[in-house]
Amino acid sequence: MSVRFFVTGGTFDKEYNELNGELYFKQTHLPEMLSLGRSRVEAEVTTLMMVDSLQMTDDQRDLVARACREASEDRIVVTHGTDTMAETARVIAQGVSEKTVVLTGAMIPWKFGSSDGLFNLGSALAFAQTLPPGVYLSMNGRWFPWNNVRKNKIKGEFETL
Amino acid sequence: MSVRFFVTGGTFDKEYNELNGELYFKQTHLPEMLSLGRSRVEAEVTTLMMVDSLQMTDDQRDLVARACREASEDRIVVTHGTDTMAETARVIAQGVSEKTVVLTGAMIPWKFGSSDGLFNLGSALAFAQTLPPGVYLSMNGRWFPWNNVRKNKIKGEFETL
Amino acid sequence: MSVRFFVTGGTFDKEYNELNGELYFKQTHLPEMLSLGRSRVEAEVTTLMMVDSLQMTDDQRDLVARACREASEDRIVVTHGTDTMAETARVIAQGVSEKTVVLTGAMIPWKFGSSDGLFNLGSALAFAQTLPPGVYLSMNGRWFPWNNVRKNKIKGEFETL
Amino acid sequence: MSVRFFVTGGTFDKEYNELNGELYFKQTHLPEMLSLGRSRVEAEVTTLMMVDSLQMTDDQRDLVARACREASEDRIVVTHGTDTMAETARVIAQGVSEKTVVLTGAMIPWKFGSSDGLFNLGSALAFAQTLPPGVYLSMNGRWFPWNNVRKNKIKGEFETL
Repeated sequence: MSVRFFVTGGTFDKEYNELNGELYFKQTHLPEMLSLGRSRVEAEVTTLMMVDSLQMTDDQRDLVARACREASEDRIVVTHGTDTMAETARVIAQGVSEKTVVLTGAMIPWKFGSSDGLFNLGSALAFAQTLPPGVYLSMNGRWFPWNNVRKNKIKGEFETL
Repeated sequence: MSVRFFVTGGTFDKEYNELNGELYFKQTHLPEMLSLGRSRVEAEVTTLMMVDSLQMTDDQRDLVARACREASEDRIVVTHGTDTMAETARVIAQGVSEKTVVLTGAMIPWKFGSSDGLFNLGSALAFAQTLPPGVYLSMNGRWFPWNNVRKNKIKGEFETL
Repeated sequence: MSVRFFVTGGTFDKEYNELNGELYFKQTHLPEMLSLGRSRVEAEVTTLMMVDSLQMTDDQRDLVARACREASEDRIVVTHGTDTMAETARVIAQGVSEKTVVLTGAMIPWKFGSSDGLFNLGSALAFAQTLPPGVYLSMNGRWFPWNNVRKNKIKGEFETL
Repeated sequence: MSVRFFVTGGTFDKEYNELNGELYFKQTHLPEMLSLGRSRVEAEVTTLMMVDSLQMTDDQRDLVARACREASEDRIVVTHGTDTMAETARVIAQGVSEKTVVLTGAMIPWKFGSSDGLFNLGSALAFAQTLPPGVYLSMNGRWFPWNNVRKNKIKGEFETL
């Protein structure tokens, strides 16, 4: 079973710029995370963009949906900022069928010692291999169908509608 | 959906004893790992034993199988040393039906900065929620039915027979 | 030999706010860092303020200088943001004599896995115990007298004038 | 000011062998630690041996002393296992004069997330730059002359005689 990873940025991949004290994107940490997790799932990683999901445009969401549709794999994990993850999931759901697409992200950047990213990545990769075709979010060890989830911005968690 | 965790020790939970330089067990790190992963899956954690799986006795394997059988939950994750994980899975499979039981572990102790434990825990928790009843191993981002898996001790990976 | 620590904030103590993605101050990590370093130097830690050094006011610098002057200890370490560390050192030097005061900080927050903070803290504590009375900066494993140092903002390092 | 580092192994540099669960030596982590600490002290690192200090022979201690004596630098840091650090310091003191030699180590391997190694390295490098000629141990944020120190093996700390 082969899985495709599409990277879009998000907290997951944020770095600390020591010269100005700001967070920014350099390149994705996904390959090193898969390596640390000793993943032996056949996988290819493609970076589509590196953006904060609050800045993601409609065109960029379309690009993600198109990438999922055109991928040769039926099992896809999309890493994404949490703030608009549900919105992008909706756009993907409109354009993709017959595939299992799982969006995931992190509340804490991977480069921080205390990130939830590796746990989320492990979950998302597992869900992508076992859930039936559809578009899902995977956070907090749980999975949610794209049309029954929202981020609770007070708690920093995902929940059903 | 509620998940039960049974802890048996293994590399997962090994600590470094700074007074004599040896690895040993203190108590499980599972709750702090679930907390770091921001898991919101309803879960209870029970420590059955804290042993290196090379030292695990037949009686102890029976105890694990009985705990799985008698648990009120249908979804169970067992943390276990990798060396004899497949053996314990076989014993559980003989005594438990109608439940999804996923065994997982780590190649590197959680207390080390570079452990695969958090990734494996995320995967195992996801597989426990989605796989049909049966006994499985989850390592390397993959899942294996209990009767089609072995540890490749040269590579430190799991593979089908 | 007893050492006093004065905390003023700086990158050292910055945390990641997972709800809004911004860096902020909660409380100092100095005690846990000293504990991790297994420090057995007699020490007391006092938090004077928790500010980004670019925001530090003249009044606040005076407060730091007064705290150093009035401390009962002759050996003092001040944790401070790097951007205006040299300015505060100058103010302390005007108001304090007969004491060894060492300012230090970090380029990367301690809560990040890859911080230079623990190294700098070890150096600063050592310099505070061995340098003669005076006001110094300690960064990059080096020490600088307060009147012969500046931050090279391009390199993110400290250097002599 | 130029500092020479001599590596002899010790807990500092121990790694976890995931295939057999034992601790072992591969190569020193000193350069990456100095890099993480953003050290800008002119320095050269030489690995003399990679041994557990309980296994260190008299010949090996002589080799360390000779390396210190023949080094062109006057400021030297020796990384060493803690169990016999004081013994090696004594041998160095018999063979070296007019140089500042600081031995340091760690109670927890650097590759573990919670090592004291980076703190100790920062301290040792600072002491090597400021203490007068002599042979010293640096642990727990403190420094000890070679002839007034022992390891308290119950507490895992160093103390004066």
